[in-house]
Amino acid sequence: MPELNQPIVGPSERPAEVLIDPIVGVDLGGTKILARMIEPSTGRAVGRVKAQTPSGVENVLATVAEVVRQVPGWDEAVGIGLGVPGLVETDGTVNRCPNIDGWDEPVAVAAELIERLGKPVVVANDVNCGAVAEHRAGAGRGMDNFLAVFVGTGVGGGLIVDGKLAEGKRGMVGEIGHVTVDKNGRMCGCGERGHLEAYAGRAGIDAEARRRAKAGSSSLLIDLAGQGSVRSRHIERGLAENDQLTIELMQEAADALGHALGNAATLLDLERIVLGGGVMDKLGEEFLESITSSESFGGFGPSVVDLVLAQRIDDAGAVGAAIVAADRFG
Amino acid sequence: MPELNQPIVGPSERPAEVLIDPIVGVDLGGTKILARMIEPSTGRAVGRVKAQTPSGVENVLATVAEVVRQVPGWDEAVGIGLGVPGLVETDGTVNRCPNIDGWDEPVAVAAELIERLGKPVVVANDVNCGAVAEHRAGAGRGMDNFLAVFVGTGVGGGLIVDGKLAEGKRGMVGEIGHVTVDKNGRMCGCGERGHLEAYAGRAGIDAEARRRAKAGSSSLLIDLAGQGSVRSRHIERGLAENDQLTIELMQEAADALGHALGNAATLLDLERIVLGGGVMDKLGEEFLESITSSESFGGFGPSVVDLVLAQRIDDAGAVGAAIVAADRFG
Repeated sequence: MPELNQPIVGPSERPAEVLIDPIVGVDLGGTKILARMIEPSTGRAVGRVKAQTPSGVENVLATVAEVVRQVPGWDEAVGIGLGVPGLVETDGTVNRCPNIDGWDEPVAVAAELIERLGKPVVVANDVNCGAVAEHRAGAGRGMDNFLAVFVGTGVGGGLIVDGKLAEGKRGMVGEIGHVTVDKNGRMCGCGERGHLEAYAGRAGIDAEARRRAKAGSSSLLIDLAGQGSVRSRHIERGLAENDQLTIELMQEAADALGHALGNAATLLDLERIVLGGGVMDKLGEEFLESITSSESFGGFGPSVVDLVLAQRIDDAGAVGAAIVAADRFG
Repeated sequence: MPELNQPIVGPSERPAEVLIDPIVGVDLGGTKILARMIEPSTGRAVGRVKAQTPSGVENVLATVAEVVRQVPGWDEAVGIGLGVPGLVETDGTVNRCPNIDGWDEPVAVAAELIERLGKPVVVANDVNCGAVAEHRAGAGRGMDNFLAVFVGTGVGGGLIVDGKLAEGKRGMVGEIGHVTVDKNGRMCGCGERGHLEAYAGRAGIDAEARRRAKAGSSSLLIDLAGQGSVRSRHIERGLAENDQLTIELMQEAADALGHALGNAATLLDLERIVLGGGVMDKLGEEFLESITSSESFGGFGPSVVDLVLAQRIDDAGAVGAAIVAADRFG
């Protein structure tokens, strides 16, 4: 995992954006809140402050404000970018955060934090922040038409169109996990049938492995996971030990990803798709290769787009949030 | 078909864009070349000049220049927007125009016309021009996240993301005709298998109808088309007379469209999809309804997006080309 020791935006690539004003980027996650400062003259990420995520919206907002105030150089910052694991409206209202205890209703996060911190606050979806970080500091550098897809428990994505983060009507652009790959296929967590996420997300793989194990398939994967959930390391071990069920499920995951990514590349004329998230990080190049070589690859096929692994930038969520804010501040 | 008798851009919707300078919009088609002038103060399309499309690139360029010069008010125009049925690079080079005799190699169309006409020229793909016309003067007015899909001999589309026409790496955004809807399905004209166009485009419907007729299905559709191609009016008649094969093929077309449009709406968080082109224009609301109600509708389903018929603006190609140019001139 490379430390972010180079400028976020290279002078030759995007001259107008080199001189970002100092901004604090915050990643609000289900377990921790992490803030970093982006150094203005070089574009480097510097100061770093961390706290546990408490329960309840009021406590979360108070902790975010506290963490931000502790970041070295906060007084000079021109504003804050905050990434949250939820649906974000353009005015900085967060509708719900399923991963955060007690956050079931819309909260005017930007307005609340502006009041507490006295500086401009931009709130963005965390997957979009991750995509922007890969676009500007990672494997998508210099790409104007670019999709970042994160494969973990679920499957999410962020989309860059003609050099800009696409936001969409409801801030939901990039929901590639919920495109249909097989209309008669597996049930997705969202209640619809045959979505990519049901094939490539860990939760979908877990559910299907248990279903097939019950139906009689022997399953090293379920043995490894036991009472818990299937983790990426269990999948890695299953593949390494030639477990038939693991191999089958991961081929189906690769086929589903190839189908959906190929279609997206053709519809959007993408230059590159970057794949990150726990499953990709663990399985690496070999799984990437099985996606690229899948016979189900959609659209014009793999020759028209470049598929690469994410660079796994340190604290990508916080860095991406700061970049999103910098772009919004203009 | 409504005459374009209202301003292209409504003052309340897009105040910054109301005062377009006078621009000539040209639609270069396989059979005719048509130019119109956009009146600056009102945004109305006025003067109209037409010519047959000749053979050979040199003759085509000469005719375009001649038609433009004949448009009333040409002297006051600040530039030209030209829509072409081919792959257009951002510098105005057109790589090929399969529908125009003798145009098999890249031609620097913008540069050539600038030399002949002495004013700025913007060249754009004709499907993108049609999409922009629907976006700004038709059924997509006021929509910031919008897809226009034209269903005719083939299936093409143009995409608006966050208020702007998406261009992509190679100017090929919107190729929804070539997303895969069934990886084991029908062969597409492009050589890949299972693309939308093979199900919903007239050429694909024609080929499949002949295949099934050969295999023994009785076919009013083929009887109507005879030695020629299946036309939209043949499909309309087949449906009206309850011809079983026509009904089957059009249900498969509706399913394929529903699948692909639903996936696009979910991936791109679209507000609206506008459907135009010969097949849609002929079959109208009833066919639209069978798309919306298809059990194959992809992604989050039809509830998250609005599907409507195109407004069929007069000379949409020329009007759209002028708007694309106006946007580019800034």
